[in-house]
Amino acid sequence: MNALSVPAPELEVETWFNTPRALSLSALRGRVVALHAFQMLCPGCVSHGIPQAERLHDTFAADGLVVIGLHTVFEHHAAMTPVALSAFLHEYRIRMPVGVDRAGAGDRVPRSMRALGLRGTPSLLLIDHLGHVRHHHFGRVDDLVLGAQVARLLAESAAAAAQGCDDGRCAVS
Amino acid sequence: MNALSVPAPELEVETWFNTPRALSLSALRGRVVALHAFQMLCPGCVSHGIPQAERLHDTFAADGLVVIGLHTVFEHHAAMTPVALSAFLHEYRIRMPVGVDRAGAGDRVPRSMRALGLRGTPSLLLIDHLGHVRHHHFGRVDDLVLGAQVARLLAESAAAAAQGCDDGRCAVS
Amino acid sequence: MNALSVPAPELEVETWFNTPRALSLSALRGRVVALHAFQMLCPGCVSHGIPQAERLHDTFAADGLVVIGLHTVFEHHAAMTPVALSAFLHEYRIRMPVGVDRAGAGDRVPRSMRALGLRGTPSLLLIDHLGHVRHHHFGRVDDLVLGAQVARLLAESAAAAAQGCDDGRCAVS
Amino acid sequence: MNALSVPAPELEVETWFNTPRALSLSALRGRVVALHAFQMLCPGCVSHGIPQAERLHDTFAADGLVVIGLHTVFEHHAAMTPVALSAFLHEYRIRMPVGVDRAGAGDRVPRSMRALGLRGTPSLLLIDHLGHVRHHHFGRVDDLVLGAQVARLLAESAAAAAQGCDDGRCAVS
Repeated sequence: MNALSVPAPELEVETWFNTPRALSLSALRGRVVALHAFQMLCPGCVSHGIPQAERLHDTFAADGLVVIGLHTVFEHHAAMTPVALSAFLHEYRIRMPVGVDRAGAGDRVPRSMRALGLRGTPSLLLIDHLGHVRHHHFGRVDDLVLGAQVARLLAESAAAAAQGCDDGRCAVS
Repeated sequence: MNALSVPAPELEVETWFNTPRALSLSALRGRVVALHAFQMLCPGCVSHGIPQAERLHDTFAADGLVVIGLHTVFEHHAAMTPVALSAFLHEYRIRMPVGVDRAGAGDRVPRSMRALGLRGTPSLLLIDHLGHVRHHHFGRVDDLVLGAQVARLLAESAAAAAQGCDDGRCAVS
Repeated sequence: MNALSVPAPELEVETWFNTPRALSLSALRGRVVALHAFQMLCPGCVSHGIPQAERLHDTFAADGLVVIGLHTVFEHHAAMTPVALSAFLHEYRIRMPVGVDRAGAGDRVPRSMRALGLRGTPSLLLIDHLGHVRHHHFGRVDDLVLGAQVARLLAESAAAAAQGCDDGRCAVS
Repeated sequence: MNALSVPAPELEVETWFNTPRALSLSALRGRVVALHAFQMLCPGCVSHGIPQAERLHDTFAADGLVVIGLHTVFEHHAAMTPVALSAFLHEYRIRMPVGVDRAGAGDRVPRSMRALGLRGTPSLLLIDHLGHVRHHHFGRVDDLVLGAQVARLLAESAAAAAQGCDDGRCAVS
């Protein structure tokens, strides 16, 4: 079962690609976020996870969904450097913003991956407008299921916005 | 654009397969219905439409979605008889209820297909709990899009049920 | 193991489609023949076998390969009639010659299928220039393997033709 | 048209993976060789070319075909280092011998790639038992076509071996 509701810790990112400025979950509060954690040399990420993240953007960006990639290198660190990632993003024509998860001191698992409790790659997290992780998928997830989950979170977000609610508080607008 | 809201005319069906009793949209009022119109010799139905209808059932039946097949023969009538359809359903292991659209008098297009205004096969209609056609797809439709549309209609249905509303009227429960 | 060499019995066909005249293996002696046995309501035939037979034609017709379909109905006889097959061939845009295997008296398995010893559909037989069945595949066969088998039989045929050999006899030319 | 016959220049390789000793085309004289040139960040290589090279090995190794990968980096040199290639081969479970094409002095195209006249990646060269390039494919090549080409070269090789011929000379054995 992947339905839950826990506050998402802030991302810790060394470098961003495909975005003019750094992104943060706190600045995206009020928006629904799909966070796709991948490694550039992970076969399941290349064949399935990344194309699905791009379809999420193509399908739901107009409804307000924000799709972010997170390069969570926990193996083969010497191979999957930011320089290599940059070439990968170029060759695969990947357009979404991608952050490089910050290396942990004395830990092969990087910091955001550790804080988010990811089990590996690909992982896909759906974060609601209050900043809570509501769905946490590890491995392959079906498009019908994912489309439904995103739609429900977007509907919650729209309902809250209509009531003047944000960040857990509802104010007179 | 496929979002709309028009009352769905009742189905006119000669024979039902995979169901112990005849189905009707009026009896399904209060439920969200995915109506998949197909022909057994339509390549796009076989390769894409029917498998998607079955995935819809597998994914959303537990949430209340009803998936119904409708065999809308508008060409090659001598080939796509009920006997042939029965063999087809058996060979392709199709489990969803399927109705045979009733032939129109002097009309190669059958009655339900004409009444629903279908342009061909495969077509997929999403009908809300009030019996209104809300989405009308002709040809291929993406799973992410479809998952989101179904989720929104199921959420409407659940909200109405929670308020004691049904069939357009809200009653004290 | 599918490599062998047995004389192919002559086809017994009720009706031909996609050819102006009846075909026979005896008249095709000297040519390499790929005989694809299928049923129009067999899922594996539709998804895999028939497209592969068409690729065989597209790839090797210029080198002399003859590709023939054989509709070997051994179940659901009332559904898979010649009228239904005609609609099927039209809808799936199938261009290769297709013969309808002749029904056996008191036998649900048709005559050619019985004589050829087919185990079911899809089956693909490769028949050499001497009229011998050299490869007999039941179910799915890999394109690399198949390409190699066809190439070897075409090479034998070309070598025999270059030596003035045909039908098992080599004559001074 | 990809049929030709030119002597293959010797490979110039910096490092080998998946083989206990360095390979050379001259030492493989008498064998049919499939040489697959790729880059680890080339999408068409990952999705199509490399899996096909592995299918070639699985299908034809028992008949004597030798399949060799050649990592011909002509762009993103800082990303596609031998260290990165090693991680890539591990993650994608690639078992065939792979040589790293030697960098050219003042040339972004590496030496073997330049000498072989490759136009890009993926490229697949079929080299006969005499050491001649007989087929040179750039981009996607169909399995039926490829299976036939390999079978013809293996047949030539077997015929030459049966006659005691090797390396262009036929000797009394």
